[in-house]
Amino acid sequence: MKLARFWDGEKVQAGIITGEEVAELRGSIYGGYELTGRHFPFREMSLLAPCEPTKVVCVGLNYRDHAEELHLDIPVEPVLFLKPPSSVIGHRQPICKPKICRRLDHEAELAVVIKEVTRSVSPTEAKDKILGYTCANDVTARDLQPKTGQWTLAKSFDTFCPLGPFIVTDVDPTNLEVSLFLNGSIRQKSSTHQMIFPVYDLVSYISRVMTLFPGDVILTGTPGGIGCMEPGDEVIVEISGVGRLINEIIEG
Amino acid sequence: MKLARFWDGEKVQAGIITGEEVAELRGSIYGGYELTGRHFPFREMSLLAPCEPTKVVCVGLNYRDHAEELHLDIPVEPVLFLKPPSSVIGHRQPICKPKICRRLDHEAELAVVIKEVTRSVSPTEAKDKILGYTCANDVTARDLQPKTGQWTLAKSFDTFCPLGPFIVTDVDPTNLEVSLFLNGSIRQKSSTHQMIFPVYDLVSYISRVMTLFPGDVILTGTPGGIGCMEPGDEVIVEISGVGRLINEIIEG
Repeated sequence: MKLARFWDGEKVQAGIITGEEVAELRGSIYGGYELTGRHFPFREMSLLAPCEPTKVVCVGLNYRDHAEELHLDIPVEPVLFLKPPSSVIGHRQPICKPKICRRLDHEAELAVVIKEVTRSVSPTEAKDKILGYTCANDVTARDLQPKTGQWTLAKSFDTFCPLGPFIVTDVDPTNLEVSLFLNGSIRQKSSTHQMIFPVYDLVSYISRVMTLFPGDVILTGTPGGIGCMEPGDEVIVEISGVGRLINEIIEG
Repeated sequence: MKLARFWDGEKVQAGIITGEEVAELRGSIYGGYELTGRHFPFREMSLLAPCEPTKVVCVGLNYRDHAEELHLDIPVEPVLFLKPPSSVIGHRQPICKPKICRRLDHEAELAVVIKEVTRSVSPTEAKDKILGYTCANDVTARDLQPKTGQWTLAKSFDTFCPLGPFIVTDVDPTNLEVSLFLNGSIRQKSSTHQMIFPVYDLVSYISRVMTLFPGDVILTGTPGGIGCMEPGDEVIVEISGVGRLINEIIEG
């Protein structure tokens, strides 16, 4: 099932994508909902980020080849950082390159969307706490990343967390192909089975640090092949069975 | 004026503290509100964290003596990191020491509460974007801080961001005394005029990275004298003209 948030011309709606249409929902995608029976034609341009996280928890260096390309050691436990909710945008919304940034990088990532309040769960229990998956781009001002030691500055600008297009509820996250295309050329390509810390382990680990809430998002790290983007470029994160997240870069 | 959020036995309310009473508000403390005319007796135990931030932006090493006690260089620009909203608690709510943490530290800080949507403002403009100030304790699992290079893990556990007791709207943030008492003994004592980056500069700087929203919180850094806390301890952050934030430590 593909869950979407969209703008119907008057207000924000939730719906299920069914081919060329969106079936409108009443209620919460995290709790009980029902179909209203209303259908809208599916228009890509009306999509919003598919959830509204209270936090976006990110995992650095979770693919062996990405740690190697940055000349960093393979971590022995997950490297956590946060992106603010204000950085979240949706499919087809522009990524703004800040004036103070000289090198703006893409990082294709599988994003996990949490279904319910989750605290101190085991990897086995984590599976049932996940609503679904979407595509993410952990946009990074690479030249600002080493500036203070903390990655927050480089990762937190407005528009630096594209998510979408939908939440897909029925995929197995252990072997998904993650690709990134810049202006049609492939730049990143890997599989989630290359993760150092797999999805359920990450959800478990993070839930032992901080309580996760419905709609909270975990970005699970990027594979090798990171590279820069310039205004005018089109960047696509594609994950098999999950979707294609498309964003254009503009001057900030 | 002292603005508070509290539990009235049935629901969350906002009010103005006037001596021994709380005057109930209708509306938003960030926008228009009016007094309902109802008053409640002020009971400290019913206070909640005075705001519900979409993000808590923190500034590391913003007092010269604290950078020195950690043997770190004086930063040439603010060191930013984030604490998740799930870490926020209020006055008199317990701080839980996680089982995996061996050294739990206090960090007394002045917290800024944002009034309205704030994006790319100057230090002069920043003043009008601030609703008020409250006390904060940037609780830190010090032994976990160097673990991955990123401070997120050490700073993000549930209960690691006590805020309160109230938001005070009419203080000048440039010369406030910040103190911390552990079981009645003074451990930190400084003035906000010792900040490397003062409050309006910080709000301006952060607003150029990420849009701030009503209720968002900025923790402005801690002075020297950090030290550890154990279950059973009582920790008080006291800021002149702003208030006294009291929390007890318990086993997590």
